[in-house]
Amino acid sequence: MTSAASRPRREGLSEAATHRLSLLLRSLGVLEAEGVDTISSPGLAQRLGVNAAQIRKDLAHLGEFGVRGVGYHVADLRARLGAILGLDRVRVVVIVGAGHLGQALADSKNFNGESFRVDALFDVDGRKVGGRSRTGVPIRHTGTLRASVEELGAEIGVLAVPPESAEAAARALAEAGVRGILNFAPATVGPFAGTTVKNVDLTLSLETLAIQLTPAAT
Amino acid sequence: MTSAASRPRREGLSEAATHRLSLLLRSLGVLEAEGVDTISSPGLAQRLGVNAAQIRKDLAHLGEFGVRGVGYHVADLRARLGAILGLDRVRVVVIVGAGHLGQALADSKNFNGESFRVDALFDVDGRKVGGRSRTGVPIRHTGTLRASVEELGAEIGVLAVPPESAEAAARALAEAGVRGILNFAPATVGPFAGTTVKNVDLTLSLETLAIQLTPAAT
Repeated sequence: MTSAASRPRREGLSEAATHRLSLLLRSLGVLEAEGVDTISSPGLAQRLGVNAAQIRKDLAHLGEFGVRGVGYHVADLRARLGAILGLDRVRVVVIVGAGHLGQALADSKNFNGESFRVDALFDVDGRKVGGRSRTGVPIRHTGTLRASVEELGAEIGVLAVPPESAEAAARALAEAGVRGILNFAPATVGPFAGTTVKNVDLTLSLETLAIQLTPAAT
Repeated sequence: MTSAASRPRREGLSEAATHRLSLLLRSLGVLEAEGVDTISSPGLAQRLGVNAAQIRKDLAHLGEFGVRGVGYHVADLRARLGAILGLDRVRVVVIVGAGHLGQALADSKNFNGESFRVDALFDVDGRKVGGRSRTGVPIRHTGTLRASVEELGAEIGVLAVPPESAEAAARALAEAGVRGILNFAPATVGPFAGTTVKNVDLTLSLETLAIQLTPAAT
């Protein structure tokens, strides 16, 4: 399948399907590392905790995968899925806000792997500018954001600033030309033409855990 | 509805439904602040970006809500939903790992609101122990975890430690008696009897954003 052909389908993916496919890609990587050659859709479903029909439906949305009676060829599915999802290359990420959260993200394995690499942090604090995070990510002045995004070829900007600074930082990232913004600030930003904004609400993870807790024995 | 009666239903909630109800509760808070008295399920659905039937189904799972022809009474639904979900009181949270991520979470509005309050950070680094986060959360030695959890009445423990330390920290939290563990470490921990573990994978948010990006003009 050509990348061009995959695009309209990819854009038709729901948030939930996108989430499942991201998890699927991760599991395929683990399976490949384990030396698994082929796996059935029920096997994949069990791995992801979703039903097999769901997986077949998600994949059908992207094209033809799987071999009747055999299941999926792990390495092949991983490679094709990675390519379709655009996760088969490293994207440059920049983070605005070199406080605790920004530095934690800049140094995390989560944000530095096969698909992403954090190349710069930005801050307005002169005491931080010119320094580096623990793993060596340079901290630049926010005033250089536009030039830096072009220089680094950054595609994704992460907002790790206080809520009152979020909109301005997001606008600067959008104007600098990043294609996606991951917003950790508890504030809504945008929308900006040509830039996709995704809000990460860490409260949700805590709330969903609390809701799932078994009632206290009282 | 009595809390006891609500429990079995609450425990039957899927991860996705739990997530939607958490978002719903947040939206109801905003609506109440805006002075909205009643809202239709289509109105709520639009607010959450899900379909109205889905919301009615999620709520039906919890009991009787809504008035035919009127919709939902915002304040009443918010109060009852909050009580059923166990988010109508402050739960004490402790965070293991006083690195950048741990301190970012300890100081965040996300983890300090109507339903949660971070009362302590724990670390093994003697230079940090005895100090406080920017907002004043005390940093205690991890060796005091068990006694501290009891003393503080902590119900939830957050793992903000390196992957190699995750299992030991999680076990310490479980043995100390927390009922839920929110794991930010890129490592699987547990399971532990009587303690619910929820893994937070920050990579997923970055991947789902990347997948949703419009293809670059090349």
